[in-house]
Amino acid sequence: MQTIGKQSICFAHPPYILSSASVVGKKEGEGPLGAKFDMICDDDKFGSDTWEEAESTLQKEAASLAMGKAKLENKDIRYIFAGDLLGQTIATSFGLMDYQIPLFGLYGACSTAGESLALGAMCVAAGYAEKVLTVTSSHFASAEKQFRYPLEYANQRPMSATWTVTGSGAFVLGQEKAGVKICGLTPGRIVDYGIRDSMNMGAAMAPAACDTIYHHFEDFDRKPSDYDKIITGDLGSVGQEILIKLLKDKGYDISNVHTDCGIEIFDSEKQGTDSGGSGCGCSAVTLSAHFLPKLINGEWKRILFVPTGALLSTVSFNEGQNVPGIAHAVILEAESKT
Amino acid sequence: MQTIGKQSICFAHPPYILSSASVVGKKEGEGPLGAKFDMICDDDKFGSDTWEEAESTLQKEAASLAMGKAKLENKDIRYIFAGDLLGQTIATSFGLMDYQIPLFGLYGACSTAGESLALGAMCVAAGYAEKVLTVTSSHFASAEKQFRYPLEYANQRPMSATWTVTGSGAFVLGQEKAGVKICGLTPGRIVDYGIRDSMNMGAAMAPAACDTIYHHFEDFDRKPSDYDKIITGDLGSVGQEILIKLLKDKGYDISNVHTDCGIEIFDSEKQGTDSGGSGCGCSAVTLSAHFLPKLINGEWKRILFVPTGALLSTVSFNEGQNVPGIAHAVILEAESKT
Repeated sequence: MQTIGKQSICFAHPPYILSSASVVGKKEGEGPLGAKFDMICDDDKFGSDTWEEAESTLQKEAASLAMGKAKLENKDIRYIFAGDLLGQTIATSFGLMDYQIPLFGLYGACSTAGESLALGAMCVAAGYAEKVLTVTSSHFASAEKQFRYPLEYANQRPMSATWTVTGSGAFVLGQEKAGVKICGLTPGRIVDYGIRDSMNMGAAMAPAACDTIYHHFEDFDRKPSDYDKIITGDLGSVGQEILIKLLKDKGYDISNVHTDCGIEIFDSEKQGTDSGGSGCGCSAVTLSAHFLPKLINGEWKRILFVPTGALLSTVSFNEGQNVPGIAHAVILEAESKT
Repeated sequence: MQTIGKQSICFAHPPYILSSASVVGKKEGEGPLGAKFDMICDDDKFGSDTWEEAESTLQKEAASLAMGKAKLENKDIRYIFAGDLLGQTIATSFGLMDYQIPLFGLYGACSTAGESLALGAMCVAAGYAEKVLTVTSSHFASAEKQFRYPLEYANQRPMSATWTVTGSGAFVLGQEKAGVKICGLTPGRIVDYGIRDSMNMGAAMAPAACDTIYHHFEDFDRKPSDYDKIITGDLGSVGQEILIKLLKDKGYDISNVHTDCGIEIFDSEKQGTDSGGSGCGCSAVTLSAHFLPKLINGEWKRILFVPTGALLSTVSFNEGQNVPGIAHAVILEAESKT
């Protein structure tokens, strides 16, 4: 049995992360993790004519780098699991098309980084593929245009706003042994707390993160201290506070082990990013550049990676719908050296 | 080994379709398959204030009916695999939220009906869930608003245009024996033939259908006559002609066994639907109402179900990008009665 508890999966044969890559924009390169990213581009258009093409280029480069690090070619990858934030996930379609690899397109807002790792791991662990690639991305300019205002409008941002990360992270998952394995998952449900503020995504997503992490603990019969870190995707500092409080109310205190990719990626005070970074790319590049190395070098043994997504479109938002959230949790463990 | 050939999966323990349901709008109810659908609503707004909410209601009703037919409740379904055509797949998020079941959100344009069945089947066959639900939908009015012109603009339609089906199909997949099993899959790659006409989706998707069906035959070492029917999603009559020609050029003549959900669902001449029906909902409701019964009653033994998707958004289209296609193939077989 690979199912565990109400909604989780515990792999009998955990798949491994064979390689990963992170490609980011200028602002991310100037942040505290700058030196760790594989590629930083000074031109946020990445040589393209449009923001959307720029985001496609991000995905293409991240995928290419990840395959290259594992010394693999297109033909070695059986399937891709990928997505982004844009309508009809065009960054993914146009970014990954040229690889000519069968593609499962995903949409889970910013939780897609977790969803793609989850489905990719399920695919490899079941023996449906020897190797798969998972890719996600976001771009500050294409996301602002998609979800809020054109950049030219120069709207003011409240302190609760997050800053969409320009970046793409790619991961090659496979059956052969490597430094980090994916031991299990807790796919999440949609949680609606009635948030209607598109400038406060942290508050919209924190209840979903709480729901997924709570059920994760219950399903696996674990507690916060069983993890070196519990890492949410892009709650930012506003969402972090809410998550810690909500989980405390349910009997779990994660305050000692929690961090958030959106908090780690920018120096909010110096960089003017308010509550922190966000986007599909935020958690993907931070995992690849900052967290995976700590598992590989033995500093950490086990982390819970929980990308969080806010489910809205301009249409649903303008029609007066709430902004519900979703979060998917992935257990990552260091492979023992012995 | 469950992998077969270059890009296909052959299940060692095929999962079954335990139940399915189809919910459609007025026009679909007036078409040739009208009597076969589970629910037809005369009001295309389904009692909602907006087209998007109407589409969400379609998904909610289809999911509820499918679970009801299998005598299941929410708590019996471990995961949902679902998607739709709208930006950020809002029909899915707001339609299925209340079921409180962990959700994998998908986007593969109109191929999502195949993608969701594929991933749902992979999940059940691997033992990650006893039962899952797959749901897809489209709505004529929300799709026209999303992709083309507001209905009020009353633009003229060329003969190559398809008519987006208002409908949602839901399928419960499980490990226990039932009338139809999912024996294998060929997930598809993105194929770009340089089509730039958003009113000719059939031409954009036919090359992708050809690529997937061709690799399916090669991977499984099969020929067209091994299937009672090969059923594409929404190529319409224009796309059908192209697909048959393209496959003939590659050595496979499917003209005797091919049909298309978009051709079956409307009487194009009487109903003014030009090339045929289209949308995520088109293939899903036609499979549920029209094709599955033929497998269950023994009329057919094996079909290949190949939903087809056109990968575009108004943004990518207006920025001068092509409209590439994608198609995922699913093998459905009648369970032998002996």
